[in-house]
Amino acid sequence: MKELALSKVYARIEPGPVVLLTTAHKGRPNVMTMSWHMMVDFEPPLIACIVSEGDFSFAALKATRECVIAIPDSDIADKVVAIGNCSGRNTDKFAKFGLTALPAAMVEAPLIAECFTNLECRVVNTQLMKTYNLVVLEVVKAWTDPKKKSPKTIHHHGYGTFVVDGETIKLKSKMR
Amino acid sequence: MKELALSKVYARIEPGPVVLLTTAHKGRPNVMTMSWHMMVDFEPPLIACIVSEGDFSFAALKATRECVIAIPDSDIADKVVAIGNCSGRNTDKFAKFGLTALPAAMVEAPLIAECFTNLECRVVNTQLMKTYNLVVLEVVKAWTDPKKKSPKTIHHHGYGTFVVDGETIKLKSKMR
Repeated sequence: MKELALSKVYARIEPGPVVLLTTAHKGRPNVMTMSWHMMVDFEPPLIACIVSEGDFSFAALKATRECVIAIPDSDIADKVVAIGNCSGRNTDKFAKFGLTALPAAMVEAPLIAECFTNLECRVVNTQLMKTYNLVVLEVVKAWTDPKKKSPKTIHHHGYGTFVVDGETIKLKSKMR
Repeated sequence: MKELALSKVYARIEPGPVVLLTTAHKGRPNVMTMSWHMMVDFEPPLIACIVSEGDFSFAALKATRECVIAIPDSDIADKVVAIGNCSGRNTDKFAKFGLTALPAAMVEAPLIAECFTNLECRVVNTQLMKTYNLVVLEVVKAWTDPKKKSPKTIHHHGYGTFVVDGETIKLKSKMR
């Protein structure tokens, strides 16, 4: 993993990929699948996401206020879905799915070696946690796998239907 | 446009497409391009989004507390980008880009006939508006164009680079 400039993080989250979220609580790492997230600010990169109270990761996120958002490509789409189909309550998902946990630099939650982007995050706002399970995260360190040149992400359309990234087009935009 | 069940709205927003957001303020319709949004709840469908204070639409959204989220497909990608490149402050974007405004059922903001999905929304939470320009919308009515069978959406990767939906895959998910 190579460090990724924080100013470039938004371009990985804004396209709306299905991501993994890792936590570590009382020495135990866990991972969940998530696609309710969005950018909130460019730099420092802020990301809002919904982590349901019903998710085992919720308690870890609430207690530690830290997590890693890891972005998988379509090569491991089947694992990503299987991770979402079981709970850390009774499963060591890293072992079960053969994921390689790498130590992060600034948080306890692990990076995932198989993911082309890893974002170390700290919770910075919980005002809407009670009402909507919505937390705002600040990305404090970001990593990219330079070996993955053009990773294709997946996008959930409900009930196990996913659309994989297709053609890339360039249009004349004044926008960052 | 045919009515779309509110329970099916999440599957249009969750994949992370670039969308358009329309408002109507003092009799004047406007439209902006947006890709910082996410689902917050299934039903009633709640959507969080970031509308910057600098956007001309911000004042309209704040004053009327209503908008429409319209989802374009890749056929009009060039228009979607051009809409993001100018401001309603000095442009009638509906006229300039040949968009057809259709009356909505429950809000003043117009639907866009050229978009395959249109979601009529009301602002339901502004607690994070001051801090992050983040508003939570409730979708009160949803529309789909039955003639568009498999619309391909676009996903922004920064500076005018967009990825168009590619292959659809089915994986065994227990998730809605």
